[in-house]
Amino acid sequence: MKRLLLLTAFLFPLLSSAQQKPNIIVFLVDDMGWMDTSVPFSGKVEALNQRYHTPNMERLAREGMTFTNAYATPICTPSRVSLMTGLNAAHHRVTNWTNIARDTPTDHPDSTFLPLAWNYNGFSPKTGVPHTVEATPLPVLLREAGYYTIHVGKAHFGSAGTPGANPYNLGFMVNVAGNAAGHPQSFLGIENYGNLPGKTSAHAVQNLSEYYGTETFLTEALTLEALKALDGAAKTKKPFFLHLAHYALHDPLQADPRFIQKYLAAGLNPQEAKYASMVEGMDKSLGDVLAYLQRNKLDQNTILLFMSDNGGLSTGFPRGGKSNTHNLPLKAGKGSMYEGGIRVPMLVRWPGTVKPGTVAQQYLIIEDYFPTLLEIAGTKKSQVSQGVDGKSFMPLLKNPALKDSTRVLVWHHPNKWLPQGGLGINYKSAVRQGDWKLFYDLRTGQKELYHLSTDLGEANDVARQYPDRVASLAKALGQQLRKWNALMPVFKRTQTPVPMPDEAWLP
Amino acid sequence: MKRLLLLTAFLFPLLSSAQQKPNIIVFLVDDMGWMDTSVPFSGKVEALNQRYHTPNMERLAREGMTFTNAYATPICTPSRVSLMTGLNAAHHRVTNWTNIARDTPTDHPDSTFLPLAWNYNGFSPKTGVPHTVEATPLPVLLREAGYYTIHVGKAHFGSAGTPGANPYNLGFMVNVAGNAAGHPQSFLGIENYGNLPGKTSAHAVQNLSEYYGTETFLTEALTLEALKALDGAAKTKKPFFLHLAHYALHDPLQADPRFIQKYLAAGLNPQEAKYASMVEGMDKSLGDVLAYLQRNKLDQNTILLFMSDNGGLSTGFPRGGKSNTHNLPLKAGKGSMYEGGIRVPMLVRWPGTVKPGTVAQQYLIIEDYFPTLLEIAGTKKSQVSQGVDGKSFMPLLKNPALKDSTRVLVWHHPNKWLPQGGLGINYKSAVRQGDWKLFYDLRTGQKELYHLSTDLGEANDVARQYPDRVASLAKALGQQLRKWNALMPVFKRTQTPVPMPDEAWLP
Repeated sequence: MKRLLLLTAFLFPLLSSAQQKPNIIVFLVDDMGWMDTSVPFSGKVEALNQRYHTPNMERLAREGMTFTNAYATPICTPSRVSLMTGLNAAHHRVTNWTNIARDTPTDHPDSTFLPLAWNYNGFSPKTGVPHTVEATPLPVLLREAGYYTIHVGKAHFGSAGTPGANPYNLGFMVNVAGNAAGHPQSFLGIENYGNLPGKTSAHAVQNLSEYYGTETFLTEALTLEALKALDGAAKTKKPFFLHLAHYALHDPLQADPRFIQKYLAAGLNPQEAKYASMVEGMDKSLGDVLAYLQRNKLDQNTILLFMSDNGGLSTGFPRGGKSNTHNLPLKAGKGSMYEGGIRVPMLVRWPGTVKPGTVAQQYLIIEDYFPTLLEIAGTKKSQVSQGVDGKSFMPLLKNPALKDSTRVLVWHHPNKWLPQGGLGINYKSAVRQGDWKLFYDLRTGQKELYHLSTDLGEANDVARQYPDRVASLAKALGQQLRKWNALMPVFKRTQTPVPMPDEAWLP
Repeated sequence: MKRLLLLTAFLFPLLSSAQQKPNIIVFLVDDMGWMDTSVPFSGKVEALNQRYHTPNMERLAREGMTFTNAYATPICTPSRVSLMTGLNAAHHRVTNWTNIARDTPTDHPDSTFLPLAWNYNGFSPKTGVPHTVEATPLPVLLREAGYYTIHVGKAHFGSAGTPGANPYNLGFMVNVAGNAAGHPQSFLGIENYGNLPGKTSAHAVQNLSEYYGTETFLTEALTLEALKALDGAAKTKKPFFLHLAHYALHDPLQADPRFIQKYLAAGLNPQEAKYASMVEGMDKSLGDVLAYLQRNKLDQNTILLFMSDNGGLSTGFPRGGKSNTHNLPLKAGKGSMYEGGIRVPMLVRWPGTVKPGTVAQQYLIIEDYFPTLLEIAGTKKSQVSQGVDGKSFMPLLKNPALKDSTRVLVWHHPNKWLPQGGLGINYKSAVRQGDWKLFYDLRTGQKELYHLSTDLGEANDVARQYPDRVASLAKALGQQLRKWNALMPVFKRTQTPVPMPDEAWLP
């Protein structure tokens, strides 16, 4: 018996090794700009940092690492697909948002360019689905690695009528409220989140009938559901992966009744007060998750990664105030290839690995989550069918001082997102290497060059001063786009594609 | 090393003992009558048995046990709440179907009786929710016992705006398509199961956007989702509990395109051909589940229980043909206290425990599932807050010859389900002991007595011939209703409740 007990003690760590893996939470906010927080990501407190109140993000910054150069793509679906597949948007070709209705490209018609055959049905975990990119999804791999995988909130990985519309096909074992929709019909429980007979659209949020007719704001309902799912995870005795993907801060902008008064009292215009209340409601959710971890003694062995899927919306309506002011000092907003469209807030808390109060300035991009989380889960990448463009930022988590100014980041948006266009919006590509960023206009062939560390606001195009830099960045961008066989817009007149940035411009 | 291997071999059975528990599948069909099958539950092939084609139910009968006297309640929600709580409907007081909208009793107004304060918000896993019965749900207990708990399909345990509307509150770890709705808006993938902008009602089925615009019939979609969830269960290495609760055969009656032609060709009227196609679609789902178990080598350690929640609908419309003919030789149908409303098809397959091709004639009722499943899961009932009215039928599974003619079964429906009434419908109670059944009309005080083994169709009321039997059954019924403090309808004129069946009739 004594021998048996000894052996039990000996074997237990072997048999339960899967349980020692850290829990993983990706706290993904929709359309959250770099400045939609009281955490000063620019290194100094900007005007917008004073507008918003995000005490739990502040706590995350104190207890973890702040990433000042974290990037997503300018649009929602491309970012989400990159997160799930490890692929760059130019490579997975889901370069614009996916419609709920299958086979329905969301590009607006254009007088110069032909319609483009991008993967407008989104991402598919199965082969043979037209107009999708097939890939092995992150949750499938995490599930294989022993994780209990949970999706709560917005999915928006693929169109209805395709497998990608359903988180259960992506390796998630729990799904609450995720489907083909990219935004909610309503954030209000008293409006049943849009489930009002006769008025229900495809954007009405599902799975939340428990809260119908109550004052529960959508962000709160999703948080309650996420914590419920974590209760379930505890029963499995497995490490969990929680993908808590809030519908906030996407429009429709609606007042979170718990926080609206203070922002109205502060003199914000009604739209911006609503927006600020949604920001704080999102932050409250973060606080509730952190409190849950603490209460359940999970906070020491859980890595929480806070991320947004693109920059803050900065069109005049539905936002209040003037266009292109909502991410200042960053230029432009959601949909744009300027920093306001792609640079996003990112924070990571991981006791024991990430030092409290640290700041990482190394740039990274959303497809880096894929290899990073696989590394955390101790998974071999050998099962990944698609190859991986992202690069693990695990070394950075251990040492925020690491610098790599040779790495090339690429953005590619050969699409027409807004009919009226806008600053840096529609048919744009960009590349960053070190402090330099090259901006490439696919419609005109124009190139702009910015030195980000001295010109965060991209106010001074220095392309003429640094032709060699322009050439080398254009070459780097062209090489990468060719390697991925990236789609280029095709001119109606000549039926030829837009030249690569390092090719002669001959439209 | 050799010693280590030996010890591993020795310890493994101990450490993995939870995995030896049998998997449990409750395959629950909605509104399925005793005759909606080619399995002859009456012991001989009736006319209706020749109409329907259910080869997989036939297989279940060959490989498992057929229950010829299995009962539910006459209405959906009461049965489901009994299954989840182990309580008789008279005890849990959810005696009618629950509305999607909270605080909305579904009784029709009546000229004789006052509105009744039954638990019209349904079942609640939490205390303090008005007009609900609070109880510990079956899946919570199974989850505690180490099970991975899955709900797919119709839930209908409680109204929207209450916790019971959400299967995740009941201990289910996966929920697909379950909420406060009692029937689907549409069974058709090409109609998005009702999710059609501007036309979407609260009955549109959620979580199935993957199949929108496809030919996938709802029954098939739910089956695919259930099997997907079982794939997930396998990853957990835990035994699973799958509650696969089909929306079929509830109205709206819609043709299952895979099977409709043969029934039209057989000369059925269009409504009944649709119904028969839905029956066979449901049976195909059963076959797919059985095939999955076999393919994944789960069939030897899985108990599958096939059950319906009430008798077959037998009103003239939406069914085709004459009222009260759809469950013949049973009398009446859904909503009725006659056998057509409450006697339901039941089959159990459990290799190693249940002998193939056996028949159990002992009567049982749907609340018996609760203690039976807990016993199978090896769970102590000590955690059950509500007490349990049901009785485990485990002994019967081991020995179908067991007989207990002293047991008293009770049905109680102090509600007005249909405005126009119908055979045995509205304000009825009943009791069965041995072969005898007493029927008690709460509106008139009339009692009817039937001897079921010789009068399956309840054609001959023998109350006058057996006054002692009437008195003893009335007493048994009265005692049980008093014990449960069952609600009785209250006369408007006198403000007094309907007398118990063993009390003098003095309205």
